[in-house]
Order: sequence, then C-alpha cells, then structure tokens
Amino acid sequence: MTPEDLVQIEAVKRLKYAYLRCIDQKDFDALTDLFTEDATAAYSGGKYVYEGRRAIIEFIATNMGREAFHSSHRVHHPEIELDGDTATGRWALEDTVLDTDWNFLLMGAAFYEDRYRLVDGAWRIEHTGYRRSFEFMLPTSALEGFSVTASWWATDGQSTLPVQ
Amino acid sequence: MTPEDLVQIEAVKRLKYAYLRCIDQKDFDALTDLFTEDATAAYSGGKYVYEGRRAIIEFIATNMGREAFHSSHRVHHPEIELDGDTATGRWALEDTVLDTDWNFLLMGAAFYEDRYRLVDGAWRIEHTGYRRSFEFMLPTSALEGFSVTASWWATDGQSTLPVQ
Amino acid sequence: MTPEDLVQIEAVKRLKYAYLRCIDQKDFDALTDLFTEDATAAYSGGKYVYEGRRAIIEFIATNMGREAFHSSHRVHHPEIELDGDTATGRWALEDTVLDTDWNFLLMGAAFYEDRYRLVDGAWRIEHTGYRRSFEFMLPTSALEGFSVTASWWATDGQSTLPVQ
Repeated sequence: MTPEDLVQIEAVKRLKYAYLRCIDQKDFDALTDLFTEDATAAYSGGKYVYEGRRAIIEFIATNMGREAFHSSHRVHHPEIELDGDTATGRWALEDTVLDTDWNFLLMGAAFYEDRYRLVDGAWRIEHTGYRRSFEFMLPTSALEGFSVTASWWATDGQSTLPVQ
Repeated sequence: MTPEDLVQIEAVKRLKYAYLRCIDQKDFDALTDLFTEDATAAYSGGKYVYEGRRAIIEFIATNMGREAFHSSHRVHHPEIELDGDTATGRWALEDTVLDTDWNFLLMGAAFYEDRYRLVDGAWRIEHTGYRRSFEFMLPTSALEGFSVTASWWATDGQSTLPVQ
Repeated sequence: MTPEDLVQIEAVKRLKYAYLRCIDQKDFDALTDLFTEDATAAYSGGKYVYEGRRAIIEFIATNMGREAFHSSHRVHHPEIELDGDTATGRWALEDTVLDTDWNFLLMGAAFYEDRYRLVDGAWRIEHTGYRRSFEFMLPTSALEGFSVTASWWATDGQSTLPVQ
C-alpha cells in the first residue's frame, strides 16, 4: 500500500459516508448519483435483492422515506482493497431505527461486502450487500415513560430537553 | 487530494477524537485547549448556542460534569475539507447517556458541521454544531431487571459481571 | 507525521478491525494469528487479565463462543502513535450483546489502550485492554413485544421482517 493508495481509499470511504448520510437525511436524488447505473444490492443476507440503481433507490425511498422513520446507519472498520479501477470494501454496520408513526425501535448489526468502480474519475457503488449479525425490535409504547425528544423533521433537529 | 492533505486530515480527525474523549472522561482542562479562544457552538439544531470557548466549556461542564452522568459520544463518517489554514468537517454522531442519579437512558443521532483553524501549527475547533436526526429517552427505573454493571467512576472502570 | 506513517497507521487500524470482526463472527483461528505469542490482555479495567495469546483466545472462545451470543464490538476515534517497530493505540469502544439463550441485552462503552508490534512485516497485538465508561444489562423477557428478527447463525443473516 502506498500513500497514493490511501488517497483512493479515502475517496472510497467518502462515497460510503455520503451514501449513508443521504439515506438518513432522505436525500434520494443525491443518493442516486452514488451508484453505477447497473448497480446491484443484496441487503439482509440476500433477502432483499435489487438490480439497477433505479430499483435500489425505489426500495430505499419506499421503505425509509416517511419522515416518521428516523434512522441512524453507521459504518465502521473499513477494510478497502483497491484493484485498479475497482475496489472492494468490508464494513461493520450498526443501525438504529426509531419509527414515531408505528412506535417501534429497531437495532441491528451487520457486515457489508461492497464493490466499487471508478467512473469518469469518481468512485461509485457497483454492488452493496450486508449480512446481519443480529437485529431486534421492540414497541416503544410498551416502554413506560419513553419519550421522543428530538426529530430532524418534527422538531427541526432540536431537542426539547432543557439544559442549564 | 494529496497524501500531504491526508496528513492534515488525520490531524483534524485527532482533534475531534480528543474533543469527544475529553467530554466522556470529563477532562475539561484538556478540552479547553482544543478550541480557539473565540470558538462558537450551536448544539442541538441551534437550540444551545455559546460564544467563546469559556462559555462552551462551562456549558459542557455544568451539564455533563456529574460522575453519575455516563456518556458515550461517538463520531463517524468524517468528510473533512481543507482550505489552507482552515477546514470544515461533517460527522455523523451517535450518543448514549446513562444517568445513574436520575435513572434515565438517552440515545440520539445527529450530524455535525464543524469549522477548524490552524493556530501555531495545531488544529483547533473554531465552530462546532450539530442537528439531531432523533433523540429519545426512557427512565431505567421502569425497565424490570435493568442493572448498571460498570462505571468509570463508581466501579473503577470494571464490570461486576463474572466471566468463565 | 508523514504520508508513509499513514500507511503504517492504516495497517494498525486494519489489525484492530480484523480482531473485532473475528470476535463478532466467532472466527477464533484467524483471531489467534492477530496476536503476538506473548500477548497480554487486561479487559474491563483490569478485571479480566490474561497472559499469552492462548489464554486470551480461550477466554474469548469460552465466553463468546455460543451462537446465541450475538455481539457487535465497534471501535472509534483511533489515536495511533508509531514508534519504530512498535505502536500504541487508543480507541473508543461501544459494544452490544444480545444473548438469545439467556435472554439479555448488554450495552457498554469503554476506552482501549493497546500496544502493537511489527513481526515479520505484519502488525500484531502485543497488549490490549480497556476500561469501561459504563455497562448495563437488562433481561429481554421483561420487554413486552421484544423480538429478535435476525441472527447470523439462526436465520442465515437474514431479517424476518417484510419490506415493501
């Protein structure tokens, strides 16, 4: 590995960070540009499979588009391997979903295995997929005293909690 | 981006990591040195706004200083842009607070937008602020069987759980 | 710090990422190779202390080997210092354990202080240890409506949740 490789690896990491930011901020137009046109996805151990970026974005927008669907997808432990104009990436995911319409909390962990391709000088996602370590959910209505104190959409990103 | 840029970016990341470590370990003296004197903060979507590092540190020490206030602030997905002696940084935050005096658990996610400045060869925080994706809390007293099994302060950082 | 230092730092980070991946995927053979033979460990504020990589691996395999023990260990905020053929690393840990045999959930945060050594051109863990910021657990059987919806082992990494 050379310092120049690190520059490419940094660019691949940024691509992944932008992907996750666009999902959690529901910026599906910007999200589209991060994929190659022929991109494929195999989420949740291959249970949710999509071909073509149009199908991937439609899946994401349909299932994560509501403003009551608050998500935090965070990736860790990047193991990026460069191979010319392509690259592979292994990542550890943790995700939390707080749904304030359906009143549930979901938490999970997974490992991503991605492929990336350099297109006109910019790295794009060619394939993304993860396999779950675990996932659990619970209804928040059963949690006595549970309260939502901030929302990007419902409270303009501010907490309702007082500070001193 | 050049390999030399990566060296500066690494230094900016370290600054942010030190900032969060000092908060969670309650080292407010070391925390002070990480800010420029004229630093500003706009936490929680601009709800908690402070001018000058003295005011920022006072806010943090007042609200997070008690030893029963156990926090884990973790940042992810650094998107650092250099511009000479200044830089900007976007980060994804997840934070957990376990308060063993007031018996609550708080969990949240947010996106930071920071500015940094090079002062005498060292990067300093010039502005920091985040906007919440979500935040929720719940009283731990309502969780049957909930138990705190380790604390940096109350158990000298050791778990009370047995291992084989 | 030079760009060449960053290449070594990246290698040290990869070592740590592989260590955590092997733990969460229960690949204890691959895990063994990541340690020096004389490695030492001081987990949980020095409560769980082991000498020699054989003892460390035995501790991990004994306590985290069951398939019902689902863990997600994630490290953040690397502060790696190189010193020739050795290096030190400070990391912020967050870990979640979901045990589907014993029906509990454990969450914790800690700070790692590691030492690494270059052996035949590959970085190895010479010492690892962490001190807990906090740790808590709760029985999932007391959480009304709690359900496990995915497991690396029990559901082949797939979620049982439907999508649209």
